[in-house]
Amino acid sequence: MTHGFGPVTPPDPQIRAAAQQRQGQLTKPGGSLGRLEELGNWVAACQGVCPPKQFERARVVVFAGDHGVARHGVSAYPSEVTAQMVANFLGGGAAVNALAAVADATVRVVDIAVDADSDDVVSKYKVRRGSGSIDREDALTLDEVEAAIASGRSIADEEIDTGADLLIAGDMGIGNTTPATVLIATLTDTEPVRAVGRGTGVDDAGWSRKVAAIRDAMRRARPVAKDPIELLRVAAGADFAAMAGFLAQAATRRTPVILDGVVVTAAALVAEDLAAGARDWWLAGHRSTEPAHTLALARLRLEPLIDLGMRLGEGSGALTALPVLRAAVATLAGMSTFAQAGVSTSQESADAEAARPNPTT
Amino acid sequence: MTHGFGPVTPPDPQIRAAAQQRQGQLTKPGGSLGRLEELGNWVAACQGVCPPKQFERARVVVFAGDHGVARHGVSAYPSEVTAQMVANFLGGGAAVNALAAVADATVRVVDIAVDADSDDVVSKYKVRRGSGSIDREDALTLDEVEAAIASGRSIADEEIDTGADLLIAGDMGIGNTTPATVLIATLTDTEPVRAVGRGTGVDDAGWSRKVAAIRDAMRRARPVAKDPIELLRVAAGADFAAMAGFLAQAATRRTPVILDGVVVTAAALVAEDLAAGARDWWLAGHRSTEPAHTLALARLRLEPLIDLGMRLGEGSGALTALPVLRAAVATLAGMSTFAQAGVSTSQESADAEAARPNPTT
Repeated sequence: MTHGFGPVTPPDPQIRAAAQQRQGQLTKPGGSLGRLEELGNWVAACQGVCPPKQFERARVVVFAGDHGVARHGVSAYPSEVTAQMVANFLGGGAAVNALAAVADATVRVVDIAVDADSDDVVSKYKVRRGSGSIDREDALTLDEVEAAIASGRSIADEEIDTGADLLIAGDMGIGNTTPATVLIATLTDTEPVRAVGRGTGVDDAGWSRKVAAIRDAMRRARPVAKDPIELLRVAAGADFAAMAGFLAQAATRRTPVILDGVVVTAAALVAEDLAAGARDWWLAGHRSTEPAHTLALARLRLEPLIDLGMRLGEGSGALTALPVLRAAVATLAGMSTFAQAGVSTSQESADAEAARPNPTT
Repeated sequence: MTHGFGPVTPPDPQIRAAAQQRQGQLTKPGGSLGRLEELGNWVAACQGVCPPKQFERARVVVFAGDHGVARHGVSAYPSEVTAQMVANFLGGGAAVNALAAVADATVRVVDIAVDADSDDVVSKYKVRRGSGSIDREDALTLDEVEAAIASGRSIADEEIDTGADLLIAGDMGIGNTTPATVLIATLTDTEPVRAVGRGTGVDDAGWSRKVAAIRDAMRRARPVAKDPIELLRVAAGADFAAMAGFLAQAATRRTPVILDGVVVTAAALVAEDLAAGARDWWLAGHRSTEPAHTLALARLRLEPLIDLGMRLGEGSGALTALPVLRAAVATLAGMSTFAQAGVSTSQESADAEAARPNPTT
């Protein structure tokens, strides 16, 4: 138990075995739904019941925060866009809103560290205006790290206590792929140039500035790589700390999560250090085009459901993948068994086969 | 124009260009939704309107038919399962039913050549009881091929005339991966062993029998490979001919289609020969584990949306992919533009950047 996260116990292995057995009784050849079968079994194990129930309250929480490093030319967009996009989320005009409607999920946005005046509605958990520029200064104070982790934990508790049965973390913050890459490259011991991507679409000169900033930040991060709290304080930001707390608490509370792209998955790497075994409660929604995302997924041993060249954040990749998980639940929970439907099994076929002469002669 | 299929004109290139332009105005970095952006543009071009409309009547038609070759030990299941599964579809207990509910689609099943007594409800277009065993005899007579193609065409017309705005063909037929593999291996000039898969899960001895049957059928198919009607007659079956007619007619009627697995995609290869350019109206839903499926997708130059190790048929792979297409439509149609949301663009950022001193010095 670290920093208040209860012991993480894995999804129920007995229920998972029961689900696997049920898969073999449903009216389909064994294994023919491929990965949908494993996914359905995992959901059953998470819920502790077989057949599993379809998700009734899937919730996306978008964690918004600015980063000082964005003032140093690492992004294609100015920091003011973060606050503008928070307003866009609240107005329902962003990708996350459109995708949530398709996936039957709802969206909450929380201002953890937007560099703008606070709005009471979304800024209840605000830690500060922007995190420090990690290439040259600490992102946060120790008190701020603890406050941000506690915020994420409280947000997870609020969502679960009001009925959320599936959680997705999303991100919004100009410049946030820079600290994400620092966290991932540091924790996977990867050279910066192998991990740095284009983020929202920075040009060649901006990419070079980004590599330099990440190299500088990694120099500051490496000495504290083994201490998740220190790592968040020195080289991440309040939004990352809140996401890590949220992801760790979801696992503690036995609530399944679909991870999104490079930013959320960077926070997940730290959350696994805060609450070992948390990753058993997480599913990788998609593979983003950011090289660091693939490094983080490999470290977490998670295989994404879809790979469509997305790189937006906001929870967009996780939401695009959510219907696949719903499909897995629907088949395991909704299909008839061979016995119920009066359909012959392959074993019956094999028995009949054995009882007749060789059919090819 | 071949066999009554009108000229196939491609989806509207001007609308596609307008959709691409709109993508650049929406509140996201350009290209950041990856393949969702291309998909949304394609739907707009198919519909001839930008922004596109969300699908209101997505329809799956499952084409059921038996195959004489199944009597010769090429499948893990007995032929009687085909009729049992038709009853299961009608009762709502099959995978296609569960997956359609998640994807907001509805299911129709048509008995084209089930080897059982006819049921008036689903057998209006029935051509015969089972198709011939293609390793040793013709699948159909010429009249039967024409009747089956006309059936598929009529079914597409019925669906489109009653409002279907997206079509999916599914398959059900014990033994049907054998003719599917024959069609694909013949049309792509592939050695049988490189194309043959396990179907519903045949064992090693069954796989060997399947390879032998496919080799024998290909010997009969190769001389007629250039003539789609003859190829269907000699080496396919009534369900394949109906699916080919359905897929060709959907394109003629400018209605988008999501292809499913190896059986439907085999019929699609023939449909492209019946109505050149039809493939522009088709999307590949998923990649199945059957090797021949990958060969057929490559020939059609279609890249599947998902790859989850599925191999069930029934339209299951296409239905699992359908929400991805809905996500593409939802983002293109539902997101705010930068101007509407009052969000700064990267160009504004670049302008601001140019007006200030080098930020890294």
